[in-house]
Amino acid sequence: MPIVKGPQAFPRAEYLRRLAAVKSEMVRREVDALVVTSWANITYLTGNVTRMHSLHGLIVSLQDEEPTLVVRGMDAPGCIHQTFLDRRKVIGYPETFIGKPERNGFDAVINAIQELGVANRGLGLELGNLTTSAAEKFAKRLPKAKIVDCTKAIDWIRGIKSDLEIAVMLEAAAIADAAIKRAAEVIRPGVREADAVAEITAAQIRGPTGGPAGTNLKPLLLCSSPRTGAPHVLWSEDLFRKGSQINIELSGHRHNYVAPIMRTFSIGAPSDRLRRLHDAEVSAMDAALDAVRPGRTCSEVANAFYRALEKNGFKKESRCGYAIGIDWMEPTASVADDDMTELKPNMTFHLMLGNWIDEDFGYVISESIRVTDSGVQVLTQSRREIIQI
Amino acid sequence: MPIVKGPQAFPRAEYLRRLAAVKSEMVRREVDALVVTSWANITYLTGNVTRMHSLHGLIVSLQDEEPTLVVRGMDAPGCIHQTFLDRRKVIGYPETFIGKPERNGFDAVINAIQELGVANRGLGLELGNLTTSAAEKFAKRLPKAKIVDCTKAIDWIRGIKSDLEIAVMLEAAAIADAAIKRAAEVIRPGVREADAVAEITAAQIRGPTGGPAGTNLKPLLLCSSPRTGAPHVLWSEDLFRKGSQINIELSGHRHNYVAPIMRTFSIGAPSDRLRRLHDAEVSAMDAALDAVRPGRTCSEVANAFYRALEKNGFKKESRCGYAIGIDWMEPTASVADDDMTELKPNMTFHLMLGNWIDEDFGYVISESIRVTDSGVQVLTQSRREIIQI
Repeated sequence: MPIVKGPQAFPRAEYLRRLAAVKSEMVRREVDALVVTSWANITYLTGNVTRMHSLHGLIVSLQDEEPTLVVRGMDAPGCIHQTFLDRRKVIGYPETFIGKPERNGFDAVINAIQELGVANRGLGLELGNLTTSAAEKFAKRLPKAKIVDCTKAIDWIRGIKSDLEIAVMLEAAAIADAAIKRAAEVIRPGVREADAVAEITAAQIRGPTGGPAGTNLKPLLLCSSPRTGAPHVLWSEDLFRKGSQINIELSGHRHNYVAPIMRTFSIGAPSDRLRRLHDAEVSAMDAALDAVRPGRTCSEVANAFYRALEKNGFKKESRCGYAIGIDWMEPTASVADDDMTELKPNMTFHLMLGNWIDEDFGYVISESIRVTDSGVQVLTQSRREIIQI
Repeated sequence: MPIVKGPQAFPRAEYLRRLAAVKSEMVRREVDALVVTSWANITYLTGNVTRMHSLHGLIVSLQDEEPTLVVRGMDAPGCIHQTFLDRRKVIGYPETFIGKPERNGFDAVINAIQELGVANRGLGLELGNLTTSAAEKFAKRLPKAKIVDCTKAIDWIRGIKSDLEIAVMLEAAAIADAAIKRAAEVIRPGVREADAVAEITAAQIRGPTGGPAGTNLKPLLLCSSPRTGAPHVLWSEDLFRKGSQINIELSGHRHNYVAPIMRTFSIGAPSDRLRRLHDAEVSAMDAALDAVRPGRTCSEVANAFYRALEKNGFKKESRCGYAIGIDWMEPTASVADDDMTELKPNMTFHLMLGNWIDEDFGYVISESIRVTDSGVQVLTQSRREIIQI
């Protein structure tokens, strides 16, 4: 039996709006067809959240209202189920394209480009995500196409969210908050880190009581003393101890939209050093939030933060945020000194103030935020404190 | 304070053994230095399991006993903590390499190659994982190097595990079994899929009672009626119902080694169609397991499975397995008709018999297995049955 369509995260009109923006950009870049290979960009344009391990491509053609999604045959039912696309627009390629040195899923994508009759025109590729051999395959098998690099073209369009997307990101933020709340309940002296993480992760999936569930997951990051200067390590099998400091970075996920949050926990009273750093960071976060409004730049927000932090006697080496949306980070705007991206309403960022001061000492705090018409909305709602256990 | 070394998953001698095998292969390929960019291969050669979002590289040089790991500065403490490497062998590059169009982490890797004095010789790159612009950067900035493509060279070496690695994979398999057991406890009519997945995922992290914990995680795949023909979708917010069939693919993780397992669940008695397919698959799995022994090929195992399945009136389109180890799949041997890889002791595979018969009907069963000196050891231990709720 044909698979039925599942519930859609957004109405068809929302996807057509996004496609219209992409097609305008395609006209500007003089491409007739654009091959989208970034998973996040495919989610954006179709609603697909199937986890596709095999090579795939979404072909957006100026001549067609709906794009054509080319995926491994076994992924086609999931893509039909999840996307707004007409089922004829989902092409499953056979297993003979899998695990072969001479032929892979991009050959199926190229076949579809030829069948759509757009092989001899301007062809956009996200070259920044393609390996050399993949780029060569497109060039060799489509010798009459004029290939144009469209890396990050859709990523920049994704930067400004619709109100519908913001509503989903608010749900994701509530899931992240629920997980932070759970962390405060389960981190206790004598508990194995992994056992606490099991509970916190369950909260990321379950979501807030009575609210929507997490629909995807990235494993959270948890580093505790003496690893608090190591931001990207996972939990260990150590037991939490009296006096332990614990830094957590986690996320809520809705329909592949992600709201991250970071909080610092202390079992017992925090050290003076930690307390001073926290106070400095929270006041610098206020300064950064005050600086957010349409017309300002990412650089101005970053510098408001850096100035306030330095006034309080600390320094942060790394950028203090980045654009967020589908699949966590958008590879576009950074909240950094030299990023002159102008803020616009419904841009969203992870204002990420994690600060790794020494090899064995770091501190984290962050919020997921939205630029509003006149200022800022903080999407995550957890209290901005060192959470004392 | 300098960060302390953490507990190591393997003794130093094990890493030196792996490096010796890689160096032999480098000599064979006439490269003096090899830049490893695959995360799984870096884990293999160093013990690093830090989640590195930024560009990085491990430089294995014939002239040095220990390789040099070049990572973003903030990731250096985690890498020092987790790896067997001398701290001088972990180079953290500054934030000025982050988020810049003209300069990125690979420039820091290239700088380190120059400082090691190996810039003018045979240089191996994993080109199959590099984008065109990355490959061009290495070629342009190292004009005197003779670049040799070493894609999958280490992946093939990883294929044969040491007994120490097998011990870790057995721990991973026990975690996977614990999660399947938990699934049988929490899947109930009227329960929201996401709430059951929260519990199952917690078990993947907690591990078996009194046993080692999961040290990483990939979100599990769960598809229930009417989505059982869509293998790679995640859980939904639907409630389980009487008569629902549920297919689960999940994994246990230890020190980045992964043992996957798939099982099919039925709320109430399974349909005749499902029962017939299950019986056929289980007997074909027996045939495949009987075929596993050193000297046989992947093709022979696959064909033993296909023949037995067809004798029972079913057919499977896709390959029936692949090599496993660090970070799930190894991109090398497939259990497929045309894969003539010879089985050797301590190769490990996911014997993956998922079968998606129709758009709305599929069935899953799988085991993580090891080739022994004389036959096969099944690492996962869950009963090979349709788990009836």
